[in-house]
Order: sequence, then C-alpha cells, then structure tokens
Amino acid sequence: MAKETYVEQIADIETDFPQWYTDVVLKTKLVDYGPVKGTMVIRPYGYAIWENIRRELDARFQALGIQNAYFPLLIPMSFMTKEAEHVEGFAPEVAVVTHAGGEKLAEPLCIRPTSETIIGSMYSKWIQSYRDLPVRMNQWANVMRWEKTTRPFLRTSEFLWQEGHTVHATAEEAMRATLQMMDVYEEFAKTCLAMPVLTGRKTEKEKFAGAEATFGMEAMMHDGKSLQAGTTHYLGQNFAKAFDIKFLDSDGVQKYGYTTSFGVSTRLIGAIIMTHGDARGLVLPPVVAPVQAVIVPIAAKKEGVAEACRALKERLAARGVRVVLDDSENSPGWKFNEWEMKGVPVRIELGPRDLQAGKCLLARRDTLEKSECALDGAEDAVASLLDEISRTMYERAAARMDRRTVTADSLDALLKGVEGGNFVRAGWCGCRACEDKVKEFAQATARVFERENTAETCVVCGKAATATVIFARAY
Amino acid sequence: MAKETYVEQIADIETDFPQWYTDVVLKTKLVDYGPVKGTMVIRPYGYAIWENIRRELDARFQALGIQNAYFPLLIPMSFMTKEAEHVEGFAPEVAVVTHAGGEKLAEPLCIRPTSETIIGSMYSKWIQSYRDLPVRMNQWANVMRWEKTTRPFLRTSEFLWQEGHTVHATAEEAMRATLQMMDVYEEFAKTCLAMPVLTGRKTEKEKFAGAEATFGMEAMMHDGKSLQAGTTHYLGQNFAKAFDIKFLDSDGVQKYGYTTSFGVSTRLIGAIIMTHGDARGLVLPPVVAPVQAVIVPIAAKKEGVAEACRALKERLAARGVRVVLDDSENSPGWKFNEWEMKGVPVRIELGPRDLQAGKCLLARRDTLEKSECALDGAEDAVASLLDEISRTMYERAAARMDRRTVTADSLDALLKGVEGGNFVRAGWCGCRACEDKVKEFAQATARVFERENTAETCVVCGKAATATVIFARAY
Repeated sequence: MAKETYVEQIADIETDFPQWYTDVVLKTKLVDYGPVKGTMVIRPYGYAIWENIRRELDARFQALGIQNAYFPLLIPMSFMTKEAEHVEGFAPEVAVVTHAGGEKLAEPLCIRPTSETIIGSMYSKWIQSYRDLPVRMNQWANVMRWEKTTRPFLRTSEFLWQEGHTVHATAEEAMRATLQMMDVYEEFAKTCLAMPVLTGRKTEKEKFAGAEATFGMEAMMHDGKSLQAGTTHYLGQNFAKAFDIKFLDSDGVQKYGYTTSFGVSTRLIGAIIMTHGDARGLVLPPVVAPVQAVIVPIAAKKEGVAEACRALKERLAARGVRVVLDDSENSPGWKFNEWEMKGVPVRIELGPRDLQAGKCLLARRDTLEKSECALDGAEDAVASLLDEISRTMYERAAARMDRRTVTADSLDALLKGVEGGNFVRAGWCGCRACEDKVKEFAQATARVFERENTAETCVVCGKAATATVIFARAY
Repeated sequence: MAKETYVEQIADIETDFPQWYTDVVLKTKLVDYGPVKGTMVIRPYGYAIWENIRRELDARFQALGIQNAYFPLLIPMSFMTKEAEHVEGFAPEVAVVTHAGGEKLAEPLCIRPTSETIIGSMYSKWIQSYRDLPVRMNQWANVMRWEKTTRPFLRTSEFLWQEGHTVHATAEEAMRATLQMMDVYEEFAKTCLAMPVLTGRKTEKEKFAGAEATFGMEAMMHDGKSLQAGTTHYLGQNFAKAFDIKFLDSDGVQKYGYTTSFGVSTRLIGAIIMTHGDARGLVLPPVVAPVQAVIVPIAAKKEGVAEACRALKERLAARGVRVVLDDSENSPGWKFNEWEMKGVPVRIELGPRDLQAGKCLLARRDTLEKSECALDGAEDAVASLLDEISRTMYERAAARMDRRTVTADSLDALLKGVEGGNFVRAGWCGCRACEDKVKEFAQATARVFERENTAETCVVCGKAATATVIFARAY
C-alpha cells in the first residue's frame, strides 16, 4: 500500500500542547466556536461522548435513589444576594436578562451560573417534616459563567453539566453524602474515563462560594498540569438559612436542614482529551467512545470482503459494541489516519487474505499494537480487548501521575517541580499569605489536601504545617 | 376495610376542567410554579415522563441517522433579523441579555426561542459540497418565549424540547423529510402516548414564522379543544439564503440548500394529562408512565405478605416493568387513591388470602376493572396487561375524536360544533378574511387541512372552497 499524506495536520503534542489541543478538538469535529465570543457548539462526535458520560453517571445516581428534575434557567437577581459569599463569587460572572417580551423587567434576572439559590427556594416550599428528608435531586442542564479567557470544553461561557442538590436532617449525614458522591465520581472517572484522580478537600481560597467545605477531584493532564474534573460541596446551613429550608424534626422542634451540592460538566471531555491524547490525536476511553471499533476493509472490491465486513459489523453490534464500517472511497491508509486521529479504541482490518485464513487484524489505538484474531468469535475478542484497553489506559495514566508527583521542601523545589510538569506535595501552615505566595512565586495553586493534621513544615514560611497539600499549575 | 376520605381533593373534571388540570398537575407533583412569573419547575414525577418521551423519540431519531448535538443558548440579536418573517414572529417574545460579566454587551443577545438562525449560521460554515448533504441534527434543549398567559406544560416562558434541523440538496427531498418526520411523530404519539392525532398542513396564518409550509399534529383534549402537539416545517430556501447555506453541487454549480425543522416539547405532558385524565386524576400511558405498576400489600403484617410482595417486585423489575412496592404506613384505601390520582396503569393487590390461593389482584387504571391473576407468571400477565392498556387508551381516545368531529356548512353550525366540544370540518375559500371571521365569530382557528383542492363551499363566504379544514378551539 502506497504511503500517502493525510490531509489533517495537528501540532506537535510535546512542543505545542495548547495548539495540539485546539487542532484536535476542531479537526476531529468534537466542537466548534459559536458565533458569540466564548461559546461553543458541541458537534455530534463530541456530544456523543457527553451522552455516554451522562448515561453512565445517571445510572449511578439512580442506583443511589437520586431523582432527576428540572429547575428554571432564570434566577431573580435578589436570590443571588441572599447568601453573602455566593453572590460575591458569582455576581461578576453572571449574564443578566433585563428585557423580555418587549418590555423592561421590573427585576433583572440572571442566567443560572449554578442553582443552589433557586433550588433552595423550592426545597423551602416542599420540605415540611423530617419525614420528607433526605431530599436528593439532580438536573442535567446548561449553565452560564461569563469568562474572559475561554477554551472549548475547558472554560466556556455556557456549558452543560449535572448539578445535584441534597438536604439532610443532620450535619453528619450531609457530610457523609458529600464524601460519598466524591467516591462515586472517582469510581466513575476510573471505570468510564480510564482516568486516575486525586481527591480531597480544597483550601478556603479554592472552595465554592457559599460552601463550608469543597472536595475536588483533580486529574493530571499530558503536560503535568492539573484539571479540576468535579467537585462536591458541604454547604452546612448556609443556604438553608438564606432560603429558609426548615423542617419539623421528630422531637417537635423546627430546624434548618443541611445541604450539599455536586457537579461535573462537559469539562470532562477536555479532561479525557488531555489525559489520554497522543501525537496522532485523540485516544478515547472505550466506555464513553462514540465509536468503539471501526472496520476498515482492505481491497474492499475483492470477492467476499464487503460481505464479510458487513457480517462482522452486525455481530459486533449485536454484541453491544458501537461499531462503524468505513466503506467510503478513501484509501485504507487515509482511513487509518482518520480513525486514529478520532481516537477509536479498536481498528479492525479485514482483507481477502484474512478472509481466506479466517481471521482479521485488530489494531489497538492506545498502544498501537496489532494482533491477529479469528473471525469466528471476533466479537468476543473485540469486547475483551475494549476492557483490556480501558485497564491499560488507566494504568498508564496512573503510573504517570504517580511518577510525576514529587515532594518539595522549599519554594524553589516547588517551582522546579511544577515547571517540570509535576504535582508537588508540600507542607502548608494553613495561612492565606503562604498560599498566595506559592501562586505568585510558582504560578501554582493548592489543588487538594493530601493529609490534614500533618507533622511537616510549611514550604513557604517554615512554620509547623497543618496539612500536606498537592500544589500544581492548573487549567 | 373502613372507608376513609383521601386528603387530596381535585376539582370536578366535567364542570371545571381548567381547575381540574391545575389541581392534578400540582397535587400529583408533576410540576410546581417557579419563582419567576411564567416559569415552571418540573418535579421528578413529571421529569420522568419527559425522560421516557425523550428515550422513545431519540431511539426513533437514531434509527433515521439523525445526530444529536448542542448549540449555544444565546443568539446575537442581529441573527434574528436576517429572516424577515422570523424576526416579526419571534422578536416580541424574546428575552434579552444586555449585560454579562459586569459589563454592558456591545450587542444584545437573545435567549433562543428556537434555533434556526444560530444552527443555520453553523451549517453555513460546515457545508461545502453536495457530499456533505443531507445534514440532519437534533438537540434536546431549553428554549424561552415570553408569554403573557401561562399554564404549566402548556405555555410557559421556558420549556424543554427537541428541535431537529436538516439541510437537503433539493426541495423535493426536504419536503419528503418534513412529511416523514410528521409520520414519525404520529407513530410515536400513537405507540407511546396512546394519543390519536390529526396531522396536516397549516394555513398561512398559523404557520411557523419563516416557513414555506408548516405541518402540525393536533390532539383532542377531554373538553374537545385541540392542542398542537408537534410541528414540522418545510423552510424552503428562506433560512439558507438568510444564512448563506450553500453547497457546490455535483454539476459544479453553487446552490442554496433547502432546510427543514421539527419539534415537540414538554407540552406533550400537558397533552397526555388532558387526553387521558379522568375524575380520579391522571391516567398515564404505560410506555411513558414513570411507574407502570404499584404493588399494594393488604394486611402487610400477616405472615408471608411482605416477602411475597418483595419477591413479586423483583420479578416484575427483572421483566422490565417499572414497579414500586408501596410499603408505607398508609392504609390500603389511601394508597389506592394516591396511586390512582398519580395515574399508575396497574395496581397489584396482594394479601394473605391471595397468597394462600396463589394469586393476586390486578386493577387497571384506565377502565378501573379488576381481575385475578396467578402469582406464578404474574410478571408476564402484567406486561401483557400494560400493552392491552395502551391499546385500550388509544382506541378510547380515537373513538372520542371520531365521535366528536362534526361537519358544518354554516358559521352557526361551526360555532355550535366548537361550543359542543367538537372538531369541526368545513370548507374554506382560502382567504385570510374568512379565516379571521371564524376566529371572531366562533373563537376557533384552522388547525390543519384535512384535504386540499376540495369541491365544497367556504363555510364563511359561500364561495368555492380550496380546502377542507378542521377548525377547533385550541390551547
């Protein structure tokens, strides 16, 4: 087969990772820029990943008894100001509707940046008694946060997400729910995205506006930077008091509830791309890949090849594999490049000689290894290979995160660590000034607490540390 | 079992249908009013119906090769004005974002009332050649139309819907796609909602702003009024010209594409309620009912009852039936009322005597009939009964629509017809003045053409009719 130049070129992943990202997301048609600055259009190939994420996560929510619902997009501006920290955090980012139906509105409305306030106002109405608790709802929705600097999936003015909101009778139960959901996210990231994550509590500076405590999961990208891939928040009674979420307890006393919230967004698609991608483009985790296997006929016009490819496609589909048969006019070489760039986990090559020998060739996208496989039972072999690819992708990413997590006992070492594309473990005294100093000196932020109540010393001031923190540069 | 009064009361369906509707949607917790006037909160029981609608329709779209995607919520105001009829139709209803990120925007943005404009602008960028056609995408999204008078599900400022948008090389293909999608909607309404619909073209007055032709499906509600339950639009080259959707055809000539769009919304939930509901509340079609069967234990504390109920629940769930076991402390009578009001298709009663006799009791929500059923194999009996209920509900609604569709040869007869809660078939000359006269005289509108090129006379002016039209009062 003659060598040929594939039409789509992408920037070098090692020397220009930002451009590689932009090239990959646009050229694989995951996404496009919307007409309004900072917005994105999620194209079918990207949206299918989101649908798979949604299906997987939603099944986990259902298993926990969390109910889906839908709350309004527009929130009265007065709601935002009821929780002091919340409005301070979100007011600068909201988009405001001032006119509707041809008239100026009496009160401006903001497009939800998150829905604690409006959902809190409804919970206040619905919850009367301890018998009504816990309440656990989730919505799959669009939200809007006006950002100065945007990048598709990573930071856009509008994005899609799920936001869960729960109310509990006690602080302990609410905290358990907050931690439990982080476990759900972590298991999901591992199983479905082949993505290892660091989880833990965030510092006061990095927590959600209005939360008592925020827990995050952080993933390491190809360049060693961190990406916050999901958060859960213990909100204490902050929103319960602001929105009067009260219940009559079994002891006959009116009490405020304790609330939590949690969310992941289309940002996860960016995380997948930057965790697994390589020089050839996307490498998609099998569980969420829109296409899990592509069949490329070799010498498709030779007798029996087209029929054998179609038959194999049917068997794979019946086995539950998301499969495409690429019977377009392009050459096999062109197709190899195309589907490699699109990150399809398994490519199946089938030509006249394979057919005669009763076998086909399986090419793994993750390791680029090829192996022969009997046509008879190929559907089971492909299904097993998909599982194997998930495991390999996870292990490779976990080994990288492990290898690239270093310990620093000085600011200089911390700087050197993050410059080298590492997560850096360091002691911290707990004061904001030292946290700010790390940011200023090393352009790195505290991602999560690795351990609280530690016996080390602060990497900045040298005083006794209250926690061991993972610092990193972050998206 | 002692008689008892059920706590929730609903208005009489025959004498106060509007209040019955409000009572039912609120008391069954389908929906609640949002804090902003004209908005609704879709509660879990209502949202589950929407999820079922979505799953069923989406499977039909996928089978046709339609791809899901997601386009931005905010549309530059200048886009709206590019298609003259479109802006005239929608500008009065849009909500406008004038400020974001703490600043006044250079150009105001509107929240999508529908997405022909923004999707058209992207199609223009993506489509180059006849090889790229047809393009067929769909999005599940929220939209906003500022309305003066609102009612949950039927007319709210924000609602959820799907909107499909296609581009074709020829007018014929685009028209075929428009008609095909109406067939899909009709089959879906029949199969999944047990809802007979009238389908047909709409008059110029009633068509979508910017369309060449609109086709609607109209369903008859309990009070004989019509509800527009879905529309498909043949847009000709109107939007292609406004947004420069051009392609290089196989003959080497640049041509404008032909576009279509189609949508159904959360309004369908209102249609289900008002088509099937009765004096006791909701009657939900099995295919989209959140709960298809509820098990009510009788004398639950008697030996073996609780265990038998749990075992039956497991078997039903394994059979794919969405089942709930109501083991709450309420009395059986209270539970009967509660689940009847909530419209669950099948109630299963199981007590000590049933257990001894190896049977249970099945109560149908649609006909209120009860029958005995062997416990052994009850899961198959319930699954069959659910199919039977779908058929019965459809046939009953179809018989009503048939019985209550009358023919009028005068304006007086037309008025009498619609006052009696009927659809009225009448000839129409085709002029706007006569259409307006019907509205003024009988508060009825032309719903769809039943037949074009007819030989009758106009019900208003007596001149030769160009079409036979179905007139009705409408939601």
